[in-house]
Order: sequence, then structure tokens, then C-alpha cells
Amino acid sequence: MGLAAGAAQAAAAPLTVAQVLAEAPAGDWRSPAPGQTLVMSLPDGRQVIIELATRFAPRHTAQIAQLAHAGWYDGLAIARVNDNYVTQWGDADATRAMPEGQPRTQPAEFFLPALPVGSHWFELPDRDVFARHTGLVDGWPVARNAAAGPVWLAHCYGMVGAGRDNTADSGSVTELYAVIGHSPRQLDRNVTLVGRALQGMEHLAALPRGTAAMGFYATPAERTLLLTVRLLADLPAEQRPDLQVLRTDSPSYARWLAAKRNRHEDWFVEPGGHIDLCNALPPVRQRPAALP
Amino acid sequence: MGLAAGAAQAAAAPLTVAQVLAEAPAGDWRSPAPGQTLVMSLPDGRQVIIELATRFAPRHTAQIAQLAHAGWYDGLAIARVNDNYVTQWGDADATRAMPEGQPRTQPAEFFLPALPVGSHWFELPDRDVFARHTGLVDGWPVARNAAAGPVWLAHCYGMVGAGRDNTADSGSVTELYAVIGHSPRQLDRNVTLVGRALQGMEHLAALPRGTAAMGFYATPAERTLLLTVRLLADLPAEQRPDLQVLRTDSPSYARWLAAKRNRHEDWFVEPGGHIDLCNALPPVRQRPAALP
Repeated sequence: MGLAAGAAQAAAAPLTVAQVLAEAPAGDWRSPAPGQTLVMSLPDGRQVIIELATRFAPRHTAQIAQLAHAGWYDGLAIARVNDNYVTQWGDADATRAMPEGQPRTQPAEFFLPALPVGSHWFELPDRDVFARHTGLVDGWPVARNAAAGPVWLAHCYGMVGAGRDNTADSGSVTELYAVIGHSPRQLDRNVTLVGRALQGMEHLAALPRGTAAMGFYATPAERTLLLTVRLLADLPAEQRPDLQVLRTDSPSYARWLAAKRNRHEDWFVEPGGHIDLCNALPPVRQRPAALP
Repeated sequence: MGLAAGAAQAAAAPLTVAQVLAEAPAGDWRSPAPGQTLVMSLPDGRQVIIELATRFAPRHTAQIAQLAHAGWYDGLAIARVNDNYVTQWGDADATRAMPEGQPRTQPAEFFLPALPVGSHWFELPDRDVFARHTGLVDGWPVARNAAAGPVWLAHCYGMVGAGRDNTADSGSVTELYAVIGHSPRQLDRNVTLVGRALQGMEHLAALPRGTAAMGFYATPAERTLLLTVRLLADLPAEQRPDLQVLRTDSPSYARWLAAKRNRHEDWFVEPGGHIDLCNALPPVRQRPAALP
């Protein structure tokens, strides 16, 4: 169905989520920057692709990108899987030396004082439990209490953060985690979020849970090896996963959100009429093959 | 620490979540009814314990209990694991005959017209995205828009529901699912919830994801066998898992919720000040051994 036909149909019957995505023009999708995207390779061909939130956590993400580019994470492991909470990986035993002159931790980047200059705010129409306003900022799930005040990333399923100790300024670039259960929004503004898994979350969420305290594995043998963690830019072009994210400043995102908020698929009896921030993260797809 | 000492300390410094639970008196815990609790046994000793929501879905739960007691689910399998959504089990191929005179489906039990008589409503203090009011009703996560109106169970992590086809009155007692990701609250009032997994959710959430449409396994060989699904009451007393759930009409639950809502553990910088329904499900424990 072409776009014109789709617009005509929209007047007749609201589109479903699948229909909106099928009709989204190529320009409504963006590709994550290869220098700001991690490719984490696990055994058996499993791969997790993580886009870094460079504007929300510039210090953490710059160092994480540098460490990945240097191959520093290669051969480390997933050491903690806490059911309905997080999967955590990196240098759990703190035994790997840092490159010359690099710290193991960064100061807190829990929130920004205001929206980044030039960013696009898509305000969600419904209430939020934790903040007065929620929205998408250039693809990222963000909360704030006032239009002119601080903004912070939200702990949604698939978001990736930097573990820390009890002091706020101990954000670890050596141990990262991803949210694998119901969104633990109580962590917002308590820990630095550094990215979002665009693909492969199932490989982090389907791992056996750890049985020691906090979901750590009781023995190192239970850990899952990180074969390599590299930047997308470090991979030969033909090996790069070619993902696209729906632009949250695009008309298609607004239509997708409307279709998610009020479900018109035949199955639904009660269309919902609301959507929460963690169900509003922009969809990701494999870039379609070019037509011959 | 005794209860009196705990109360004295509460005036000085707020208790943490762990402290509240440690001090909860025995009477603030309840045991799920053995005739209304499923024990689902998977290979390798994995076990999932599901309490049935008998007052919210009386028809579905009565038939599910009857089928479990008869061993009807034994040897069926988990056929669908959809990342960040649901794990589904039962008679996926609809090949197992029902006991004489029993239907495969039940009419919709999406909501009750009002709170069950004699039930206790614990109202949560914060906003909800989907409903005007949320609370706990005798341990169950419930939403409603008016004090005198309908009430419905919420799709939180670990809640168990009855799959259905496109017609509302096709609630399946032969195929059940559990929520394994961020709470899909858009399903509320669209499908009948029948229970909550009190223990063993990790065995449903850590399974490999299915790669066919909707997360179904592409081949039957990928399925996980249900060795047996029985009622707790069907097990010899000495084999019964002895779980207890914190009573949501108890003082300890109110204290636990306050401690979860504003976190006073040293780690937290920003205590949160809010809690959402799906993070408020009452804690479950193994009944402590009696003192000698």
C-alpha cells in the first residue's frame, strides 16, 4: 500500500501499529552512528547492539567507546543476571588493568540541567508515575518535572547503565548492566544510563539467573563470555548489522504512538487509551534491502 | 532486632525494605490456599508456583484447578517465549482432548463490577499511567477509575493469564501465559488474568526466545516439557513448597511500601518518592523454620 492510499485509509479506519511501520517512508528512519554504537559478541553467534547515549552521558560514553575500540572488554564476561531486574557484564573481579592514564570510574551523569541544544522533544500525552512529564528526545526515553528544568533518561527494558558503588561519582565504565524486567524507574537519577540495546536483548534476558546475592553467578564457570565488544565503526562495512530506528521527530513516530496508544487490531476489546514511557521506545528494524 | 526496638528506630531513621521484612511479625504473612495454587514442574527440578486469582476469575480458575487436579496439563509444553512480553504454555497444537463435558474456553472475566465483598483495598499513593486509582486487593495488583466502579487485575511481571482468540469470550484454559518483561498494561481488560507466579518466574523468563511469529518456537523440539502441573493440595504435605506472601492488609505491608517508595539504603542518592503498581506486588518468602 502506498503512502497516499494509506492516508486515505487513515480517514476511514485508524491504522494498526504494523500498518504505520510498513508505510513509514525511508526518511523517517535513522541509522545509529557507527562510532557511537557497541557490538557485543557472545558465544554461538549471539550479538547485542547497543546505541550509546552520548549527549546524556558524554563522559561515560566517550570512555566506553574508547575502551571498546581498544578491545578492552574482549574476554570479560556476564557475571550477574538478577531476575526481573538487570543483566550485568564487564570486569566483575576488577582484575583487568586499565589503559595507561584511564580511570575506572566517571563522575555521575544522572541528569542534564536542560534539554540538549537542538534536540527534539516529543511529549507523551499520558500521566507518568514518577515524573510530571515524559517524552522522547531524539529517540531516548526521558522524564522531567518542568519544561525548563533537568531532564533524565528513564530505566526502561533494554536500557543500559553504568554500575556504581555507594558514592554517586563512582560510575563504572568497567561494569555495565541492561534492564531485563519491569522497568525499575526508582533507579532514575540514581545511576548513569549510557545507552539502549537496539537488538539482541533476548540474549541478555534469557540467560540463567545467578543464585548468589544480587543475582551474581555463584561460580565463574556459570558466566557467559564476551568474545568481543567493539564499535560498529570497527567492523568491516559488510559485517555491520544495518539497523534503523524510527525517528521520534518524524510524522511516522507520532502515528505509530497513536496506534500503540489506542489499539485497533481486531484482537483488542478495550483499546487502552494510554501509553507509558517504557512502551514508547521507538521501533528498530533491519534496513530493508534496496529494490532492484 | 525485636519489634519494639524496630519501632523506636523508625522514629530515628526510616527502615529499609530488608529491615521491614525482617521485622514483620508472623501474623502479617499468609499462606496461599493449597487448593488454589498450581505447582508446575519443569525438567531439571525447576518449579513454578502460581497462586490462582479465584475471586477475580472464578470460572477460569475453577476449571484450571480442576484440570490440574486431574493431571490434564501433564506432558504438555512451553511453546512460546516472546522477549519482553510473555511465556506461554499448554496445548499449543489443540490436540489433547478435554475431559468429558468440559469446554476449552471460558467467557471473559476481564474485570469485576466492584470490589469483592469483604476484600481489603490498599490504595497506592501515586499516579498511574492507565487508571485513576491503583492498589492492592488482598495481595492482587488492581486498577480502577472510580471507587464505586469496576476493578481489574493489572498485567504486571509474573502475572499469569488465559490466552484467547479474537473473540472476547474465548479465554483459554488450555493455554496460559506469564508476563516476562516490562508490564504490558495495554492488555488490562483485554484478557483474563488468572494468577500470579509466587516463585520460579526465573524459570519462565530465562528460556530461549522463540524465533517464529509472536515468539512461538519454530520447532516442537525447542519446547520445554511440563512434567506435571498439579495443585499444591495434591502434593504430599512434606513435598509442598511452604511459601508465604506478605498480607497487603497488614501494617508491615504499609511499612514495606513506604520503604520501597522512598529508598533509604545508602546506595540511593534520589529516594524516588513514588512507586508504581507493578513494583508494589507483595513480597514472597519461604516460611522460616520454627525456632527449636
